[in-house]
Amino acid sequence: MRSRIVTIFILAALVLGAGMLGAEEMNETPTPRISADVTEQLESFKVLLLNGRVIADTVWVLIAGMLVFFMNLGFGMVEAGLQQEKNSVNICAKNFIVFAIASIAFWFIGWGLMFGDGVGFLGLKGIWMLGGMDNSPATGDMYRGVYSAISWAGVPLFAKFFFQLVFAATAATIVSGSVGGRIKFGAFVIFSFLLVGIMYPITGHWIWGGGWLQERGFWDFAGSTAVHSVGGWAALAGVLVPGPRIGKYNPDGSVNPIPGHSMTLATIGVFVLWLGWFGFNPGSTMAAIAEDIARICVTTNLAAAAGALAATITAWVVIGKPDLSMILNGSLAGLVAITAPCAYVEPGAAIIIGFIGGILVVVFVIAFDRWGIDDPVGATSVHLVNGIWGTLAVGLFAAAPYAGREGQPPIGLFYGGGISSFANQVVGVVTVGAFTFILSWVAWVIINAIMGIRVSREEELRGLDISEHGMEGYPDFESYMLK
Amino acid sequence: MRSRIVTIFILAALVLGAGMLGAEEMNETPTPRISADVTEQLESFKVLLLNGRVIADTVWVLIAGMLVFFMNLGFGMVEAGLQQEKNSVNICAKNFIVFAIASIAFWFIGWGLMFGDGVGFLGLKGIWMLGGMDNSPATGDMYRGVYSAISWAGVPLFAKFFFQLVFAATAATIVSGSVGGRIKFGAFVIFSFLLVGIMYPITGHWIWGGGWLQERGFWDFAGSTAVHSVGGWAALAGVLVPGPRIGKYNPDGSVNPIPGHSMTLATIGVFVLWLGWFGFNPGSTMAAIAEDIARICVTTNLAAAAGALAATITAWVVIGKPDLSMILNGSLAGLVAITAPCAYVEPGAAIIIGFIGGILVVVFVIAFDRWGIDDPVGATSVHLVNGIWGTLAVGLFAAAPYAGREGQPPIGLFYGGGISSFANQVVGVVTVGAFTFILSWVAWVIINAIMGIRVSREEELRGLDISEHGMEGYPDFESYMLK
Amino acid sequence: MRSRIVTIFILAALVLGAGMLGAEEMNETPTPRISADVTEQLESFKVLLLNGRVIADTVWVLIAGMLVFFMNLGFGMVEAGLQQEKNSVNICAKNFIVFAIASIAFWFIGWGLMFGDGVGFLGLKGIWMLGGMDNSPATGDMYRGVYSAISWAGVPLFAKFFFQLVFAATAATIVSGSVGGRIKFGAFVIFSFLLVGIMYPITGHWIWGGGWLQERGFWDFAGSTAVHSVGGWAALAGVLVPGPRIGKYNPDGSVNPIPGHSMTLATIGVFVLWLGWFGFNPGSTMAAIAEDIARICVTTNLAAAAGALAATITAWVVIGKPDLSMILNGSLAGLVAITAPCAYVEPGAAIIIGFIGGILVVVFVIAFDRWGIDDPVGATSVHLVNGIWGTLAVGLFAAAPYAGREGQPPIGLFYGGGISSFANQVVGVVTVGAFTFILSWVAWVIINAIMGIRVSREEELRGLDISEHGMEGYPDFESYMLK
Repeated sequence: MRSRIVTIFILAALVLGAGMLGAEEMNETPTPRISADVTEQLESFKVLLLNGRVIADTVWVLIAGMLVFFMNLGFGMVEAGLQQEKNSVNICAKNFIVFAIASIAFWFIGWGLMFGDGVGFLGLKGIWMLGGMDNSPATGDMYRGVYSAISWAGVPLFAKFFFQLVFAATAATIVSGSVGGRIKFGAFVIFSFLLVGIMYPITGHWIWGGGWLQERGFWDFAGSTAVHSVGGWAALAGVLVPGPRIGKYNPDGSVNPIPGHSMTLATIGVFVLWLGWFGFNPGSTMAAIAEDIARICVTTNLAAAAGALAATITAWVVIGKPDLSMILNGSLAGLVAITAPCAYVEPGAAIIIGFIGGILVVVFVIAFDRWGIDDPVGATSVHLVNGIWGTLAVGLFAAAPYAGREGQPPIGLFYGGGISSFANQVVGVVTVGAFTFILSWVAWVIINAIMGIRVSREEELRGLDISEHGMEGYPDFESYMLK
Repeated sequence: MRSRIVTIFILAALVLGAGMLGAEEMNETPTPRISADVTEQLESFKVLLLNGRVIADTVWVLIAGMLVFFMNLGFGMVEAGLQQEKNSVNICAKNFIVFAIASIAFWFIGWGLMFGDGVGFLGLKGIWMLGGMDNSPATGDMYRGVYSAISWAGVPLFAKFFFQLVFAATAATIVSGSVGGRIKFGAFVIFSFLLVGIMYPITGHWIWGGGWLQERGFWDFAGSTAVHSVGGWAALAGVLVPGPRIGKYNPDGSVNPIPGHSMTLATIGVFVLWLGWFGFNPGSTMAAIAEDIARICVTTNLAAAAGALAATITAWVVIGKPDLSMILNGSLAGLVAITAPCAYVEPGAAIIIGFIGGILVVVFVIAFDRWGIDDPVGATSVHLVNGIWGTLAVGLFAAAPYAGREGQPPIGLFYGGGISSFANQVVGVVTVGAFTFILSWVAWVIINAIMGIRVSREEELRGLDISEHGMEGYPDFESYMLK
Repeated sequence: MRSRIVTIFILAALVLGAGMLGAEEMNETPTPRISADVTEQLESFKVLLLNGRVIADTVWVLIAGMLVFFMNLGFGMVEAGLQQEKNSVNICAKNFIVFAIASIAFWFIGWGLMFGDGVGFLGLKGIWMLGGMDNSPATGDMYRGVYSAISWAGVPLFAKFFFQLVFAATAATIVSGSVGGRIKFGAFVIFSFLLVGIMYPITGHWIWGGGWLQERGFWDFAGSTAVHSVGGWAALAGVLVPGPRIGKYNPDGSVNPIPGHSMTLATIGVFVLWLGWFGFNPGSTMAAIAEDIARICVTTNLAAAAGALAATITAWVVIGKPDLSMILNGSLAGLVAITAPCAYVEPGAAIIIGFIGGILVVVFVIAFDRWGIDDPVGATSVHLVNGIWGTLAVGLFAAAPYAGREGQPPIGLFYGGGISSFANQVVGVVTVGAFTFILSWVAWVIINAIMGIRVSREEELRGLDISEHGMEGYPDFESYMLK
């Protein structure tokens, strides 16, 4: 093992040396050099082989990142489809602008707070505009820079940034649907900047940036907590501060269902999200490791399938019909739940995790409605509840050979591991949740105090498309809504 | 040639040996080892070069599989768009749940029946839950396992499974649109499980799993027969058993066209399918062979383009206008037709094959309507007719250097080959068709006897969205339908 | 440097030699050969390493090409969403058929005119059906063939063709939206063939095919001019020749806004386009160069984000509300503007370029409307105005280490470079614009004289869906339009 590490350093030094040969070589395809000296030739081959690894890993990470970017369309259409026609422009605008804001905010400050070297609580070095020293794709001890926590990934800095950016944007996108139908566009824009620029990076630092949770042994492979439950907690605060939409609850407390305006759009959205998750989970390897990425594709897919089936059955039993919005949310629940454990569990366990996720989402959609938490798209049930469930599942289902050794989580409780791993997962769930929920609550309250977060009663009844954007989503069609 | 095979075995042994070095190395990037001994170093480079192949092939196969997965969105939107608004939720639910069912069914039993070692008719070993022995990505004679028929692909077992799973799901998805507007949701769910878990894997075993058709010399590169006409035959049975939708035919036998509710959705669907076919056909190499995958992209694309143009012209001549649903189905026809021969034919031949496909689909959509076969989306014309046509086209257009040598189909009839290849293709078309159609018919009849497959007259008139799912697709919009 | 080039030739010779070993090796995975002779073994490794490069580059280029293909869906939905319901079938049909026509036209003649060896004005060799001699993936001086201008890309000919084809189709797609609501389907089909088969390849030859602009030192990395402003000029001619839609302008010259029929579709479209641009720009490397493709992903994304934010702010200030169609077009403006300079500028510059693009698009959408240029989707503001802006930006923002050396553009004006680079960019913008606009104008006028390009007043009022295609986009829904 030691000799392999020494070898890695030497080879990395070769790569770096080659990189310093001058900039005119940077944009050229590396080509073997023929020399009389076999040793020299072997050295050049080593460099080429390492370069080949970097190329394969970078192509994989970038394509995975593109798939995650595409999830913005998925979220946009799920949220638009599950809301009323009169708010469809607004929800599209929010989902669109949130990615633009996230791109700038995460570049400007978020990346550095999350991955910059610093203390257990947050990053302190190189926090502005990716400006810290960095010699990626050098890895391990050859790495010289201020983003050490992610130096295990052997890809260029811009590839790391691109992949992490699309993750960060996902967290904010989760919020947009839950607060739908009542929030001012400007208030959402400001909150998104705070979430992606500051709040998400801080808890992200805890989990993936070398922070205190990572040190403690908290495991979240692709972000059930780091991304989904963070988005879910922020969404929950955004639902509670302004309260439910007008007309959602009768004076006696009974619930009026407000159906979404286009189930075909919602279906498009979920298919796109499922696709995007093949970037989200397998891409979180940040390296094209054949066995791992293939296996994670399969666990991810089985959990999604099991979630959809479980939600179908649960809805059929509980509601009496296989409600399509429940089927769709069931697959998302399975996907969120498998996100943390996808790399650590067997296919059979993935099915169980997804199946339980599918049950949970139906139960919690109904429960949240009864508890007065008016989340029009069920994002809290999907991302918050199943983000928690998936994170805990690591402590239950992690199994050899994917767990139990160095660089892997401990064996899960159900496979003979101790309770300590599960306990660590609970600590992460609680602390990240408390931090994000409290800060989000404070942020929404402050924004409310300064500019108001809720539109007027007349504007809400008329729809946010007119009040916030001065346009209609479908002006050529007659609608039951007031026009 | 022999020395090359010996070399492969030795190298594969090295890879396997490296793989056995211990699990702590499995998740690490392989890195060259420096040693004083040049020979030893060369050995390590060989392993790395082979690993590089596995990585490139796996990334390619997984991404191709993701594109094929995405075809579920394509099928869903084509089928939803081409059906009535009152059945839009139902068609989305069917297209969504069918992939979930396929994921579980193909994992549970289908994969093993299709690729497990066995007899000419079906696989017998390792049929449950991918549970058979397997040492992929070892290939050729180094392979030790029970899935020999697909051991030519040098990717991990999970990558093979993922790619084959998304293919299997495609077959069932084809059925969902054809039976639209009248079938109970539960009946479709059960049929899908039977199709993906049992029927498709059996004929798949014949063609790709080392079965009797493959032995005989039947060639179907990416599944014109194995996937598309199998789906088409199952759909045809599903159309014939319940009969046409209420109102489709007048008492005098004349046809009432029932237009689809959203041509924009149908257009989205076909663009997504076209994209997905760049995974379906070039990905069926299951290896990143640069020349082949580039060429197959081009033949696939030219056939699709020619199919769209042919259908446009044919519709303009026959119907009098360039009907958009015909244009869309024309490209799909070209894509289905080129699926079997895509790797074996020249670009010019691909254009001819696609063009004929585009003519066929217009003719058969009209003919099936007249013959009382009420397929709302034209899936039988697209997938069954052109699945047959494409399969036969291998026997006509296969050309050197892509045909005529070991591991390739014989030269086609139009390029100077004999009739025997064409005859073999006919045998495959007929036997797979007879098996699938008869079993599907029996399955639909049995399901009908047990639980009924057709909704009541009132439910059908009101739409399946309400009767089967208790919801509407577009509740905010006024519709011509009864509400 | 010289020794490296010699090495490349020798290695390329090895690859070619290996390629000539016989066709039975073409479809097989190359495998290292063990030999007693170390030198021989080293040679075989070199071949494998080069093959590995070709594989990585080909997979990357094909996937990037698929993403660009997918932009057809994006254009289709943006254009459909931003036009009236009564023309939705027509716009879908145009966007669909245009890719089919482009596929055939660019294969038949366009590729050769663009990349065939010839004179400064156009290609002359191997112009028909990719029929010229070519030994790709050989590169540099080892290349033997008639498509020298693109011999720098080390991928198979079919991969080059596929990638360039999807680019060519993009230019024609830009036109379809601008001329919406009044043009005959057949006239558009003919114009598209001329544009993709002849006009686009000629100016493409100037810029990328070894023509006079390329010789002169005009830089357009991914096609702000070569693709986008060419499409924009053709669209402008197509808008001016028939004149505005009926009802767009009042007798007093004031403007009637004609809102698009589906903002959700438009949103889908722009998300898909944004995704596609990750193929368009980073893929234009035509090689999987890790540092470059990662960096171009980031510059592309930042420009899009900045464009969306700038358009949001500008619209909020100028119109009074953050109009969604402006937000969407803002991101497209940023994407078009960064297309030429994406590989040559720093992330901060990308933000500035995109931000200015976002302002420009809002200003020009309003200005074009006032000037009587009735472009229903704003494509001229997006693609023409920002295609020009992005091309000029190369002369302003190109910066070391991405500029200033051989094979790179000169340093930009804002980074201390001279005016000559900017002047060259102006020459390219003006000459390509004049050529394309004049030829397009002539083409539209001739088509008009022969068959008429505009539908009748009654047909236009009733909508092109009925008059041109005999069908409705949404027959199940009630609409404000006449039915």
